[in-house]
Amino acid sequence: MSISEDEVQAELDKRRPLSTTYSTTRKERDRVRIVSGVFNGRTTGAPICMVIDNEDVDSRPYEEFRVKPRPGHADYPAIIRYGGFHDYRGGGRFSGRITAALVAAGAIAKKLLSLVGVEVYAHVSQIGRAMAGREPSVDELRRVYENPVRCAVPEAVEAMEGELRKAVEEGDSLGSMVEGYAFNVPPGLGDPMFHGLDSDLAALLFAVPGVRAVCLGRGFEAPSLRGSEFIDEYVVDHGRITTTTNKCGGVIGGLSIGTPIHVKVAFRPPSTIRKEVRTVNLMTMEATTLKATGRYDPCIGPRAVPIVESCLALVLVDHALNQGLIGAVLK
Amino acid sequence: MSISEDEVQAELDKRRPLSTTYSTTRKERDRVRIVSGVFNGRTTGAPICMVIDNEDVDSRPYEEFRVKPRPGHADYPAIIRYGGFHDYRGGGRFSGRITAALVAAGAIAKKLLSLVGVEVYAHVSQIGRAMAGREPSVDELRRVYENPVRCAVPEAVEAMEGELRKAVEEGDSLGSMVEGYAFNVPPGLGDPMFHGLDSDLAALLFAVPGVRAVCLGRGFEAPSLRGSEFIDEYVVDHGRITTTTNKCGGVIGGLSIGTPIHVKVAFRPPSTIRKEVRTVNLMTMEATTLKATGRYDPCIGPRAVPIVESCLALVLVDHALNQGLIGAVLK
Amino acid sequence: MSISEDEVQAELDKRRPLSTTYSTTRKERDRVRIVSGVFNGRTTGAPICMVIDNEDVDSRPYEEFRVKPRPGHADYPAIIRYGGFHDYRGGGRFSGRITAALVAAGAIAKKLLSLVGVEVYAHVSQIGRAMAGREPSVDELRRVYENPVRCAVPEAVEAMEGELRKAVEEGDSLGSMVEGYAFNVPPGLGDPMFHGLDSDLAALLFAVPGVRAVCLGRGFEAPSLRGSEFIDEYVVDHGRITTTTNKCGGVIGGLSIGTPIHVKVAFRPPSTIRKEVRTVNLMTMEATTLKATGRYDPCIGPRAVPIVESCLALVLVDHALNQGLIGAVLK
Amino acid sequence: MSISEDEVQAELDKRRPLSTTYSTTRKERDRVRIVSGVFNGRTTGAPICMVIDNEDVDSRPYEEFRVKPRPGHADYPAIIRYGGFHDYRGGGRFSGRITAALVAAGAIAKKLLSLVGVEVYAHVSQIGRAMAGREPSVDELRRVYENPVRCAVPEAVEAMEGELRKAVEEGDSLGSMVEGYAFNVPPGLGDPMFHGLDSDLAALLFAVPGVRAVCLGRGFEAPSLRGSEFIDEYVVDHGRITTTTNKCGGVIGGLSIGTPIHVKVAFRPPSTIRKEVRTVNLMTMEATTLKATGRYDPCIGPRAVPIVESCLALVLVDHALNQGLIGAVLK
Repeated sequence: MSISEDEVQAELDKRRPLSTTYSTTRKERDRVRIVSGVFNGRTTGAPICMVIDNEDVDSRPYEEFRVKPRPGHADYPAIIRYGGFHDYRGGGRFSGRITAALVAAGAIAKKLLSLVGVEVYAHVSQIGRAMAGREPSVDELRRVYENPVRCAVPEAVEAMEGELRKAVEEGDSLGSMVEGYAFNVPPGLGDPMFHGLDSDLAALLFAVPGVRAVCLGRGFEAPSLRGSEFIDEYVVDHGRITTTTNKCGGVIGGLSIGTPIHVKVAFRPPSTIRKEVRTVNLMTMEATTLKATGRYDPCIGPRAVPIVESCLALVLVDHALNQGLIGAVLK
Repeated sequence: MSISEDEVQAELDKRRPLSTTYSTTRKERDRVRIVSGVFNGRTTGAPICMVIDNEDVDSRPYEEFRVKPRPGHADYPAIIRYGGFHDYRGGGRFSGRITAALVAAGAIAKKLLSLVGVEVYAHVSQIGRAMAGREPSVDELRRVYENPVRCAVPEAVEAMEGELRKAVEEGDSLGSMVEGYAFNVPPGLGDPMFHGLDSDLAALLFAVPGVRAVCLGRGFEAPSLRGSEFIDEYVVDHGRITTTTNKCGGVIGGLSIGTPIHVKVAFRPPSTIRKEVRTVNLMTMEATTLKATGRYDPCIGPRAVPIVESCLALVLVDHALNQGLIGAVLK
Repeated sequence: MSISEDEVQAELDKRRPLSTTYSTTRKERDRVRIVSGVFNGRTTGAPICMVIDNEDVDSRPYEEFRVKPRPGHADYPAIIRYGGFHDYRGGGRFSGRITAALVAAGAIAKKLLSLVGVEVYAHVSQIGRAMAGREPSVDELRRVYENPVRCAVPEAVEAMEGELRKAVEEGDSLGSMVEGYAFNVPPGLGDPMFHGLDSDLAALLFAVPGVRAVCLGRGFEAPSLRGSEFIDEYVVDHGRITTTTNKCGGVIGGLSIGTPIHVKVAFRPPSTIRKEVRTVNLMTMEATTLKATGRYDPCIGPRAVPIVESCLALVLVDHALNQGLIGAVLK
Repeated sequence: MSISEDEVQAELDKRRPLSTTYSTTRKERDRVRIVSGVFNGRTTGAPICMVIDNEDVDSRPYEEFRVKPRPGHADYPAIIRYGGFHDYRGGGRFSGRITAALVAAGAIAKKLLSLVGVEVYAHVSQIGRAMAGREPSVDELRRVYENPVRCAVPEAVEAMEGELRKAVEEGDSLGSMVEGYAFNVPPGLGDPMFHGLDSDLAALLFAVPGVRAVCLGRGFEAPSLRGSEFIDEYVVDHGRITTTTNKCGGVIGGLSIGTPIHVKVAFRPPSTIRKEVRTVNLMTMEATTLKATGRYDPCIGPRAVPIVESCLALVLVDHALNQGLIGAVLK
């Protein structure tokens, strides 16, 4: 398959800090270099190694967090896990920066999926109390990067921006929901039990810093509903089997059923806020406080849109490769 | 470690159909035999193989589902995935019966965890619109199998039974929520990224038939909350670090922080209901309907309590073994 | 794919003790049952579980070996590895009986390979000082089970029988060489580095009890040869590329080159002999001796022929499945 | 654990082309950089990423090999395997250069093993017809890098140099044998069946370009020997169990028995020689010839000594980590 650094870079650029007042001021250019696995513009069959160097790293604040661990961050358990020897600079392996690698890999996965007609999108459906209010159309999803909050429902953008502005003013942060969609996934993709599409998706999504809940379709509402309300009935449409509703999010028993894969991902509000929070000085084991200065992302959702897309693409492409769908097209 | 068939059987018995009017009438004795890996009452270090034979299998209804796939079940995607050659009897690999194996394995995991003081519990916190209303105490969790709805909050049991009774009368089914807890998990258990405790837990839980959403702690509410509302602040308690709240469910960055692991699992309402549902005849590709007769589980939650416990135990014991916690005790 | 217990049983029967005076008198019927993964005579896509129950197990002699470990057997390191808790009956996981499972799995692998025209054979090319003397033809390999020493070169059988007879008379045992061949393997099968055909083959073959050396083609002689003597030159034959010789055994860089895969496997002489051997009493840490009574296999090679065939088949079918060769035929 | 680039570099330097007339003239500085996993001179618990950039790459000759594949090299099967898209420069993934990564990883494995007293060595025991003639002592093994043929038996060096000189003069190449040893390996290290020490060692060694045969101890001779000649009898020595001989190479049933691990690795003579060899022009499918110019390694053995050491170290450290031996020391 042909692939270029520019194609991967275009995906990475979607993950960059938003060019608005709402986001961190760190310069993260995230320039990707493909160092192996691509030759003469085409994949060679060897593993593809891509490198994104860190730039503009100011490690000083992290010295403090070794002694005074930030609540809501992995500082404290990481010290225990690695006996204090881990690389704490920039948050280390627990930093959101690690998702740049997911997006770079996702760029290749998306391109492979496009060979079999599968398209993957995501958007922000909730920021704090502002909701999208409805499902976006495919066309709206395709234009999701046109607004800074990455919400594909145009009429909801303003309210979300308002929520963000207010939180920033108050030095606080906001939780968010990102919804991912994959269209044209053929039925029967996936495996039962340990590597169902839902298991694989959930595992990868929970690896993204800040994710606290994952559901398929309308899974968050499932406990409150009755069977007669939750069932997606089968109907024939233009000679093909489909369902009238998609509450299952396109996955049953770990297998796709041919309707769009639909996943909801709940992100916590970032833990770094400009308010005083209580913590413990690990040297003295005495109570102390922390208060962030500088600017930080007040909300994870907008920057997480390409990450959720990538997670979806990576899981689907793995199964598609395993089942020989993509090999059949490449030959 | 010593282990007996009786110990495993005791766990399996918790998963059996409830002895109330609310549950399936299939006789599932689920008698377990340990066929290898245990010798003279002790584990040998070899893989433990346990066998649970199927009994009382009536495959006749499943013949119909090959032609008229049940909405909400994996009948249809399984036909596509396996080209029609899969073993459809009893729902095959997509049947809830597959969870008996998880519970048997979980029995061993629980016993290993008990060697390092870790205790694992679960209970039903919601059935339809009836909620537990509060967190149960550890003592209440220990008595969870005393009532048929497996809710550890005594005052909520009656309302849940009412919901169940009404749904059964109307031939409908109900969604439910099961919450799992692990106590005394030391901080620093887990791994970053692809094998975080949360990733591994979510992957295993989504492998359980009927699971549609998973969160850590108060993850389902995260999108609506602000950072100042969601942070668990660190404090010193009896010389040890802990948090005042546990919204993170005991896991940050894939690592335990020393507070109880707390996971919520949303189960869909069972798809088999005594109401007519639309489906498609795969032979004729014409619309048709299905309507269940006989009795089926109207709600997954109560029988899923030992399954959620087992999933928790299996993930924790894997990490504890990897990190040498249990080996240190066994020697 | 269609598969029956009888087909698997036919392969297992090849591994049974030889009906001659040269072999063990233990009754090992090795009856196989397929308990899952096959339905209506066809594989379902689910994992295939086959069970071979142990019969005629006399565990008494093994009680002695716990205290007086047999030289050349895994008794001693197994006691250390598993802290004395392992199941020592019949040699446990270190017994040659474990290879019955390889042969059962190999039966399925062979059938899958036959779908793409690949044929797998093996024969005994050396017993003690008696050698086959030449490469057998494919037809000779097909008739390998017609003589009790499983040597496909008819003129060498008598000398091998003589070696065996003499060793049995003297209460001693003999080393042996088994050579495996796979015909019609297409070029380009395999992977570089960690999962080359040669790496995978060697790993699996060394898992067979008694294997002490493995080579591809004429690898055992490689250190003594010059480049000009070892190179297989490429020529065109009927429009296809092949080589004039096959010293490389059909594998270069982990990949098949289209010539027959040819592997040599050196088996140690069995350690159980009717001669007194020195060992140590683990209770007293004093020198002692052991001397086998009863009858044992004096040579591994003849019974190992179906095992080497199975190892070859299993490795090739894994790569063929990964590369989509078999999937393309099954559809 | 502390580790520096210099320590890794020292191991890599052992793999560099020999500073004699016998070796390739390509400049391969193999400068290693540690880019992650080490912080403040200590490992962090994160994966260690090391980079060795290629220098002095002249890809021109490899253009020819795409059309006229070199006999004995992977050119031809790689073209088939990767549909012609693979990166053929310098031999690509099939080049011996790939072993630099094994040596870099081996440097870390060796240091970890040194924490538990395990020492790993290797030497060249045969070049063409010149043999070491006897086992070297540990002290001799420690000085193996003092002579250009890397043979630890001083009296054999001259004959090996003579063989090399003659082969170079005639434009030919030589096969070789490298023997690896690991001392102070505790008994009971390893696993049965699929991950025995022998299986893992063989798999990794066969991944090294040029390896054609592997044996444990005196495995190459096993087929010719009798049980009474091959058994290593147990004796007590200073209160510990050991054996009088070590024909098993320290491994039985996949487990170490406490004697030195001893492995023999047969390397083919390099296929690149200054003699005309027959091949096929893939464009025209007509017979043609190739003849190397320039200088190439006439023998793999001397440069493979640190590679065999690394393979031994990597396999042993994996098992030692799994069994908690090293963790116990690090804490």
